[in-house]
Amino acid sequence: MRHLIYADNAATTKLDIDAFEAMKPYLLEEYGNPSQPYLFGKKAQRAIMEARKTIAECINAEPGQIFFTSGGTESDNWAIKCYGGSPGDVRVIVTSAIEHHAVLNACKNLDKLHSIVYLPVDKSGVVSSEDLQKSLDWHGKPICTCMTFFSSVMLANNEIGTIQPIKELATAAHSMGACFHTDAVQAVGHITIDVKELGVDLLSASAHKFNGPKGVGFLYDRGRNLYPHNDGGSQEEGRRAGTENVAGIVGMAVALKNNTVKLNENMAHLSSLEDRLVTQLRNYNLDFIRNGSENHLPGLLSLSFKGADGEMLLHRLDLMGICVSTGAACDTKTTQVSHVLKAIGLNEEYAKGTIRISLGKNNTIEDCDAIADGIMKILTAAKKV
Amino acid sequence: MRHLIYADNAATTKLDIDAFEAMKPYLLEEYGNPSQPYLFGKKAQRAIMEARKTIAECINAEPGQIFFTSGGTESDNWAIKCYGGSPGDVRVIVTSAIEHHAVLNACKNLDKLHSIVYLPVDKSGVVSSEDLQKSLDWHGKPICTCMTFFSSVMLANNEIGTIQPIKELATAAHSMGACFHTDAVQAVGHITIDVKELGVDLLSASAHKFNGPKGVGFLYDRGRNLYPHNDGGSQEEGRRAGTENVAGIVGMAVALKNNTVKLNENMAHLSSLEDRLVTQLRNYNLDFIRNGSENHLPGLLSLSFKGADGEMLLHRLDLMGICVSTGAACDTKTTQVSHVLKAIGLNEEYAKGTIRISLGKNNTIEDCDAIADGIMKILTAAKKV
Repeated sequence: MRHLIYADNAATTKLDIDAFEAMKPYLLEEYGNPSQPYLFGKKAQRAIMEARKTIAECINAEPGQIFFTSGGTESDNWAIKCYGGSPGDVRVIVTSAIEHHAVLNACKNLDKLHSIVYLPVDKSGVVSSEDLQKSLDWHGKPICTCMTFFSSVMLANNEIGTIQPIKELATAAHSMGACFHTDAVQAVGHITIDVKELGVDLLSASAHKFNGPKGVGFLYDRGRNLYPHNDGGSQEEGRRAGTENVAGIVGMAVALKNNTVKLNENMAHLSSLEDRLVTQLRNYNLDFIRNGSENHLPGLLSLSFKGADGEMLLHRLDLMGICVSTGAACDTKTTQVSHVLKAIGLNEEYAKGTIRISLGKNNTIEDCDAIADGIMKILTAAKKV
Repeated sequence: MRHLIYADNAATTKLDIDAFEAMKPYLLEEYGNPSQPYLFGKKAQRAIMEARKTIAECINAEPGQIFFTSGGTESDNWAIKCYGGSPGDVRVIVTSAIEHHAVLNACKNLDKLHSIVYLPVDKSGVVSSEDLQKSLDWHGKPICTCMTFFSSVMLANNEIGTIQPIKELATAAHSMGACFHTDAVQAVGHITIDVKELGVDLLSASAHKFNGPKGVGFLYDRGRNLYPHNDGGSQEEGRRAGTENVAGIVGMAVALKNNTVKLNENMAHLSSLEDRLVTQLRNYNLDFIRNGSENHLPGLLSLSFKGADGEMLLHRLDLMGICVSTGAACDTKTTQVSHVLKAIGLNEEYAKGTIRISLGKNNTIEDCDAIADGIMKILTAAKKV
């Protein structure tokens, strides 16, 4: 079999082998229900407690502010749908035009009940904190005090990698009395996350995006102001019901810790890889735009090739054993230009020829050369037709 | 280390070793995102498709009616909270007094918006289909046509094992224009489940209750009438967003298939075990009541010992290396008499001395003898104090 070049690490990542080894006992021998008071249940309970502590340390939170979920989508839905008093309360929700669909569709689901504002972004995909503040402003004061105000802006965009000025956005939201949530699914485990420094109230994360297992994530909830999205038993202090995915939680903590310990090393490696890839592509004189801002996720490249077809590129690279994406993994069933590329106002001639290459810590310089070479060959052949 | 006697299989079960082996490749090598169109993603996609088919076959459903979730609690919350047109619609929800907290607390969460009716049960914990029909009745007709009607009665109770007359209940609900959901978390993989024969519209299940992994479950949705509980990407046909827990889904399917293939064998084994245990306890002349109906989950014994203390029994059995429960696993942080025992009207002298022993396919006659012997010794010692 040909060597697979996996360059779609923004879609999902390879499970950390230490994480797998840590999960194994909780899949096999230590299967006790952590809610049960006997010794056999307490072993699982202790493992969850340790995992919570580890995760909290990785993002500078307190263990009591970490709540385990089934992944980033649940974390986002929980934050957006369950803030405030109770399900029927009227809210204003301010978000951005380039959020992940977990945020956008959760907002859409609520738009009959609540008022939703979508903030624009600039050409590099950045949300302005002034815009956020203005959206909550009514003659220099917060719109009204009879409603709850919620805002949600992602930490790093999953398609173009742009990192938002979260600290400024959170400050702007707070100045107008709004709660601030950030979907950090694409960022956690890849750049430094310090929730105290960022000043966010809520932060969503997903294990499989940082070399943890699929089907588990967490929500940081500073003020513990959410009501449950999943009601039921008393797990997670009665805030998120359901028997805990013990093995998944343990694996997530190990993966995050390993990535956090090696964060600077990984970031430097990814930056050098992306530089190499861009240099090679430029050497081939290909006409392309790199989307996103200067301050972006290391290793994530959204490239728009003039006159090309992103889907065709993806499939031909696949035939060469190279995995890349046209956009978000959750959105590849549709072939239109994504909402993110539309929001940054990318010229359609380029937009249709967009692929996302997301390099991971396991990728090499050779992988980058092979990807650049593959793209060049495909585009050259397409031109000849 | 002393041999552990695990007799709390209603709380959670040991992972099927075949399920673990089937999960391993999807945890390690085949980590592609199933939403991605390249070959590496399609392998995971195919595994999910196969799992969906297997699970559908086990309960006589169509693959397109099976939706994967993070477990029983999410399945229950999804069914109860997302039936009807959209979040703000007014509904009447009829359920029973002895449901799992995933159902009861989901209903409670909605009671500001919707009208909730809790049906009583008889002494053995059975819900009457006449009561269900009457609760939806207004002068011989359904209450009104301007609202949606939903009913939810569990297939088998998790504390006392009573199996409900689901077919009659579903028929009664349908005759009044109501949708019928059953929380089958405790039943799937343990007794025959045929959704067509039962006539239910929605059915919840959780993998870890039938020797599958924790953190994954499914919802059978006959008419596909639910809107999403977790909004986001286009996974599960846009009905349940979030990157699929591929390994968990694969493991769940293998576990359910293995349990289904050996269903009659397992049921016969469990019936003989519970007979042995009850016989031994009677031989010791202990004064106890066995709760629940004649038609109950094989191997599940809710036993109420006169004048005893269930919590003390649990902890002393734990010291002997025997795991049992006082009630539902999700509710052991409180030490009151459970809502189920209250609903069946159990005399308090007995109610406080209740333990749940839930035998599994791995238990033996020797385990039953040791449990009976342990209980006898503890109760005899307690009497002497």
